Amino acid sequence: MRALWLENRRLTLRDDVPVPEPPPGEALVRVLLAGICNTDVELTRGYYHYAGIPGHEFIGVVEQGPLQGQRVVGEINAVCGHCDSCRNGRSTHCENRNVLGIIGRDGAFAEYLALPAANLHVVPDELPHEVAVFAEPLAAALEIQEQIPVRRGDRVLVVGDGKLGQLVARTLALTGCRIAVAGKHVEKLRILEQAGIPAIDAEAVEPRSFDIAVECSGAAHGFALARKALRPRGTLVMKSTYAGDLTVNASSLVVDEIMLIGSRCGPFAPALRLLAEGKIDPTPLIHARYPLDDAVSAFEHAQRPGVLKVLVDCTSEP
Amino acid sequence: MRALWLENRRLTLRDDVPVPEPPPGEALVRVLLAGICNTDVELTRGYYHYAGIPGHEFIGVVEQGPLQGQRVVGEINAVCGHCDSCRNGRSTHCENRNVLGIIGRDGAFAEYLALPAANLHVVPDELPHEVAVFAEPLAAALEIQEQIPVRRGDRVLVVGDGKLGQLVARTLALTGCRIAVAGKHVEKLRILEQAGIPAIDAEAVEPRSFDIAVECSGAAHGFALARKALRPRGTLVMKSTYAGDLTVNASSLVVDEIMLIGSRCGPFAPALRLLAEGKIDPTPLIHARYPLDDAVSAFEHAQRPGVLKVLVDCTSEP
Repeated sequence: MRALWLENRRLTLRDDVPVPEPPPGEALVRVLLAGICNTDVELTRGYYHYAGIPGHEFIGVVEQGPLQGQRVVGEINAVCGHCDSCRNGRSTHCENRNVLGIIGRDGAFAEYLALPAANLHVVPDELPHEVAVFAEPLAAALEIQEQIPVRRGDRVLVVGDGKLGQLVARTLALTGCRIAVAGKHVEKLRILEQAGIPAIDAEAVEPRSFDIAVECSGAAHGFALARKALRPRGTLVMKSTYAGDLTVNASSLVVDEIMLIGSRCGPFAPALRLLAEGKIDPTPLIHARYPLDDAVSAFEHAQRPGVLKVLVDCTSEP
Repeated sequence: MRALWLENRRLTLRDDVPVPEPPPGEALVRVLLAGICNTDVELTRGYYHYAGIPGHEFIGVVEQGPLQGQRVVGEINAVCGHCDSCRNGRSTHCENRNVLGIIGRDGAFAEYLALPAANLHVVPDELPHEVAVFAEPLAAALEIQEQIPVRRGDRVLVVGDGKLGQLVARTLALTGCRIAVAGKHVEKLRILEQAGIPAIDAEAVEPRSFDIAVECSGAAHGFALARKALRPRGTLVMKSTYAGDLTVNASSLVVDEIMLIGSRCGPFAPALRLLAEGKIDPTPLIHARYPLDDAVSAFEHAQRPGVLKVLVDCTSEP
């Protein structure tokens, strides 16, 4: 099959990759559409070691397996079911997991992928492909509300106006909290304001005034801004991964009793529900769409300044 | 009056300090006994700027004020009552606070101190001075349970066998959690084992196996050990302040969805109750007792390796 291949930080399009042969319990999925995430870009920069097919945001059709013929999206952690994490309700932290397109399992920038049937969620008929493909990052955004209470009236700052910040802000806005997004890209902030979410300049963030700050920039200065914005006993959600270490003033975390919490994969069911009900419209985030054969160009496009989501159409003919 | 005086990192005993003149709403307290805390030692090393009388752990008798004649201990944050923090149940974070012996208010190593009457807690008659003087640090230890749930059966690691770790471990042990203390001082670990709390060597801490880790060492390697010990979605409580910055691997906090929470002052009422009921006996922690006139020597003693609590008797004659 055709697939985008990552090896030694280099992306190439190959047409000789074997179609996955799913073991019992797994489904073979024909990929329709896949989205480029910052994690994919980081993989190509060598921040994490990975060789194989990247890609973990997708919508596809089951070719073989229990949901045959159905349109599906899929949770990305393939888990063992019997380790300490799996037995204690933390299966996304399975100690023996592999992760679609990230750790030990070929991903979505390909004609086909394989995933455990248990990972798949059927997509409601009314949802267009290009909306459903946002289920995975939207679920990750919703993980925040699985971890901490976000209440009506809470003052919440989202730091970062990129793909992740955009989705996080949209999910948090639905809680009735008083939200603002700090970013520096005029066009990205304009898209937020069109969704009714106020954008503010980093310099305009009032120190020690927010109940919750969500770091979505992946940059040390973004973390510093989120920290500075928090009132005592505030919560700093770390939604982005970082290249390298982060230096923090630990004493100030103790004196101000700040809570800092890392946040990763989230629940698909509410993500699909929000998309199906039209409560979140991710389509203004789509900046480009490429056929699989041009996936290398799609990655270049995704890294240009100001660009949000770039999709790869995996059904296109060679 | 006589008082221990800190200025330019130097401690001296003075006999010419004016007795405090409490404004309306404050009480004048004759100090009976005061304890030396690591924060006091840090003040003398210049980690925080403070000039005046140090000391914030005390028991005294009210000389003047609503509780006249009563034995009291006192909360250390003197607050404004009308700022955002005060109005929202976070008065220990009052934006206009001063703090006994730490920020803008003379402290306890003196014949007299002044505190708002609202800060004082009457000490049950049956409690000896040298037990009641532990109310403040014990309250700080109990703050952990105000912030996070600690459940029967939870695997909890306390890092650090010093004064703070000793009290923290004793409060957590009462929850029925499976506790262990990592330390390196044979004598301190022995005192813990006498209280029924298992001690383990840092090298024997199983990585990724604890639900909660409480950092009480104030050292970067202690933080690293606490982090390493946590399972995914575990909680790292930062109980110690640190000199300087701390470097953390932020990506691993995100991937493992670790919660990190700073913890400072806590509730006095349950601390006094635990002492009065004999559920916590802090007396094995007392390593020395000095008269106020020898308070400078008391501070030297408190900094010797292996030494736990040093008390200063403020009633002694000159």
